Amino acid sequence: MTVDIQSGPSEKKPRRTTGGRRDRQSRRRQPNVVRAPYIHRQIATYDLLNEEGLSLIEANADTILKEVGMEFHDDEEILRLFKEAGADVRGSRVRFDPGHPRQVIQASAPREYVQHARNSANNVVIGGNNTVLCPSFGPPFIHNLDEGRRYATLDDFHKLVKIHQMIPWLHHSGGIVCEPVDVPVNKRHLDMLLGHFRYSDRGCFGALIGAERATDSINMARILFGDEFVDQNCVFYSVANTNAPLVLDSAMSGALKVYARNNQAVACTPWTLAGAMSPCTVAGTLAQVLAETMAVCMLTQLVRPGAPCLMGSFATAISMQSGAPTFGNPEGAKMVLAAGQLARRLGVPFHTVGALSASKLPDGQAQQEATYGLIMAVLAGANFINHATGWLEGGLVTGFEKTILDADLCGKLIDFSEGIDLSRDAQAMEAIFEVGPGAHFLSSQHTLSHFESAFFRSNVADNNSFEQWAMEGQLDAAQRANRIWKTYLEQYEEPELDIAKREALEAYVAKRKAAMPDRNY
Amino acid sequence: MTVDIQSGPSEKKPRRTTGGRRDRQSRRRQPNVVRAPYIHRQIATYDLLNEEGLSLIEANADTILKEVGMEFHDDEEILRLFKEAGADVRGSRVRFDPGHPRQVIQASAPREYVQHARNSANNVVIGGNNTVLCPSFGPPFIHNLDEGRRYATLDDFHKLVKIHQMIPWLHHSGGIVCEPVDVPVNKRHLDMLLGHFRYSDRGCFGALIGAERATDSINMARILFGDEFVDQNCVFYSVANTNAPLVLDSAMSGALKVYARNNQAVACTPWTLAGAMSPCTVAGTLAQVLAETMAVCMLTQLVRPGAPCLMGSFATAISMQSGAPTFGNPEGAKMVLAAGQLARRLGVPFHTVGALSASKLPDGQAQQEATYGLIMAVLAGANFINHATGWLEGGLVTGFEKTILDADLCGKLIDFSEGIDLSRDAQAMEAIFEVGPGAHFLSSQHTLSHFESAFFRSNVADNNSFEQWAMEGQLDAAQRANRIWKTYLEQYEEPELDIAKREALEAYVAKRKAAMPDRNY
Repeated sequence: MTVDIQSGPSEKKPRRTTGGRRDRQSRRRQPNVVRAPYIHRQIATYDLLNEEGLSLIEANADTILKEVGMEFHDDEEILRLFKEAGADVRGSRVRFDPGHPRQVIQASAPREYVQHARNSANNVVIGGNNTVLCPSFGPPFIHNLDEGRRYATLDDFHKLVKIHQMIPWLHHSGGIVCEPVDVPVNKRHLDMLLGHFRYSDRGCFGALIGAERATDSINMARILFGDEFVDQNCVFYSVANTNAPLVLDSAMSGALKVYARNNQAVACTPWTLAGAMSPCTVAGTLAQVLAETMAVCMLTQLVRPGAPCLMGSFATAISMQSGAPTFGNPEGAKMVLAAGQLARRLGVPFHTVGALSASKLPDGQAQQEATYGLIMAVLAGANFINHATGWLEGGLVTGFEKTILDADLCGKLIDFSEGIDLSRDAQAMEAIFEVGPGAHFLSSQHTLSHFESAFFRSNVADNNSFEQWAMEGQLDAAQRANRIWKTYLEQYEEPELDIAKREALEAYVAKRKAAMPDRNY
Repeated sequence: MTVDIQSGPSEKKPRRTTGGRRDRQSRRRQPNVVRAPYIHRQIATYDLLNEEGLSLIEANADTILKEVGMEFHDDEEILRLFKEAGADVRGSRVRFDPGHPRQVIQASAPREYVQHARNSANNVVIGGNNTVLCPSFGPPFIHNLDEGRRYATLDDFHKLVKIHQMIPWLHHSGGIVCEPVDVPVNKRHLDMLLGHFRYSDRGCFGALIGAERATDSINMARILFGDEFVDQNCVFYSVANTNAPLVLDSAMSGALKVYARNNQAVACTPWTLAGAMSPCTVAGTLAQVLAETMAVCMLTQLVRPGAPCLMGSFATAISMQSGAPTFGNPEGAKMVLAAGQLARRLGVPFHTVGALSASKLPDGQAQQEATYGLIMAVLAGANFINHATGWLEGGLVTGFEKTILDADLCGKLIDFSEGIDLSRDAQAMEAIFEVGPGAHFLSSQHTLSHFESAFFRSNVADNNSFEQWAMEGQLDAAQRANRIWKTYLEQYEEPELDIAKREALEAYVAKRKAAMPDRNY
């Protein structure tokens, strides 16, 4: 399938990556940063399992679906759909013949697709050799050096959307970048979507919990993109988390059905803490993850054949001593690499998670765990990496400084994903001949001609001498990151949005809010 | 070549990894930690270049050696050896026919070999699918949270050797774990070797600078291992750094000749900051690195055919703005992965570097850079990873807390290197059948039976709730690491060393010190 990332309904011209006021500003800050809408990987995936191992996991997943099956709670329509498709439905338990879910998925699910952004220059291709990096999702708390840790508000939400929009190495505005707990639970999704649509011009998530909020999301997208465009194109990303092991509840399935019916993407993602929601082994967890994701991906195709679905995996371990989830661990690394292989064999894009950490602070633990996780997700060939920035404290906190530190790593991995330039110029043989033994390359013609773009340039790392670093205040990485997110907020400019559309979106939000009493569930 | 890692001259029985007082203590601290003498990787290397790319780099390296050649300064013996071997020698410049160095290396250099430790349970196999992790090398400063940054002393050196000895995830005692600047420069190597031999029972480096100090190292090894054993077996690791581009000076070549002549290992390692000592491109740097390492590896084989030599690469980039070296960057990642491929094609073990950082503190920058670098070195299939722990400030500082944080990562990568267990037990199908949909695995028989060993257990990470973490003093990762190295020092026990040997070593050191005036060069 070939996709045209320039198509889309935006009335604006695609933003050129080498022009425009904001881009010029961005280049002044970081001269060799080019904003690209997503990563087109030039490097191979890292394959941990061989054919035999992959077949074994697949056979086990088939056995699980045949012998144990999966539960779909409180949703008669789903049970009917599965029954009509030939599955064995008894009560809420659905069992599948080996190979059946795979066959249904492969018959209609796209191998790659485009998620459209309101600025079509930010459309992303999801699938194939492409990777989309997305910020932190879900935390009810924020952390920054000025205020410490506290409950998040809608103001924090807006600030994070703006910071993310300024970060050149993110590709998606995400969803619940933090929970605005100052807004009633049943109305948050409206304010959050309005925030994404207004303060970012990248793609975003629709609301994940329940059919009603998903329907609100679709309605708001129709205002922004037009009814027909939304029906024919993907404008939302969503995740349906199973209630592992082997359950999908109606809050998730309700939203799933709305998105699939409207041709919107659903990442079918078991959330497994090995040892608690799946076996305490990598091989056991992988089989369960594949079983769950196949059943749920199949469901999306029964709702609307051809609607985009992804195999998702959010698999980590627990501490066997305390039961607490652990992140950036070797088990997670093995599971994400193998899950990527399984997704490619299934033939759908692969969704996973990135810079996770259990740390409470943007410290050494946070960066060791985040770096381990994000590198492995990229090497796994993930097509969409949720939580690529900001996640702290096992997902309870979005860290402002952590966001900046992780974003720097995103930049390093984007550069890495380009592989090695083997052009004649990059071979630099003339330079080696020119310089010869014992001299240096600093002032060679080749070096001078690559001065601007030779290497990735971190905006957080301090590479200066101890003396200069001391003179500049002995700041640690988190303190430097603190300055950077503040600079991003200062330099942020709201992307242009048609005033009529904005007013229509605001009117929709006001109307819907007025129609519901405040609820905190 | 098959090697027997149990052979060796030690009078002690090999230490069992499941017995002994210290091991019992170690297990009490970290119940599922098994000390293994080195990593035997069950996972594939990550290959960044394809055949075409590798051939291109190899052809360019051959062209460099043919057209530019390499300089060997102040050493007539080397020039004579090269001339006798058929190279084109004019003054100190030596040029090589394409393929000539490779042919000489492949005719006699071992693909893998054993470095013997005084405790033969700690013998390491270097080459093949094996990886040896070695601590920080070279820093004149130390850093810890109690004292900050200051010049290192012999007391620090001893402390670091003891801490390293206690870390289950290191495999080598290293060399200059810090520079004892309170000892005159010309006498340090004697005290350092005595320190390694006394306080560690793992293998170590010989002194790297100059023939005289290398000869002292050999003489001390003869006291410990016996003359004939040293002549027939590798008991030292050493590195010969080129003076890139394309120069080997006599301080390095002097030591190289002593080690090769005595059958000791030399890692032939261009130290290249791309943009300064090599072209500002990955492809250009790789060709130069391969050219230099081939010329120097060839030299080791001319000195003594069959002496162990390694292809080394220590390649990173500079900041094009300030000229400062940068670490944990995408260029370094690409170079180490490709260099590993080139080494395997050359047919010698691959030496590289690990947890490098320019940070001044054990902070987020330090762990992001260290994690990026160390993961890539492992994926590159490195057989020996120098600086796997502790390096800060571009190699000026060994950090005590950084050592602990990096060691934790070493543990994670050791576990990762074991790959995925696909045994029937690990498949856990019975557990999935037992638990079924919607329940949990915490109390399943399968989970209970794996309680002790299921997952890697970090000794630094805090995975607890915010409330518990707050109650325990809100420590960051560096503060927790501070406690750990102090605990290691408290629990350290000196490994048994024959008293006669110890006295003979001390007498040698005393005699040699008395024979030289103090010099600070």
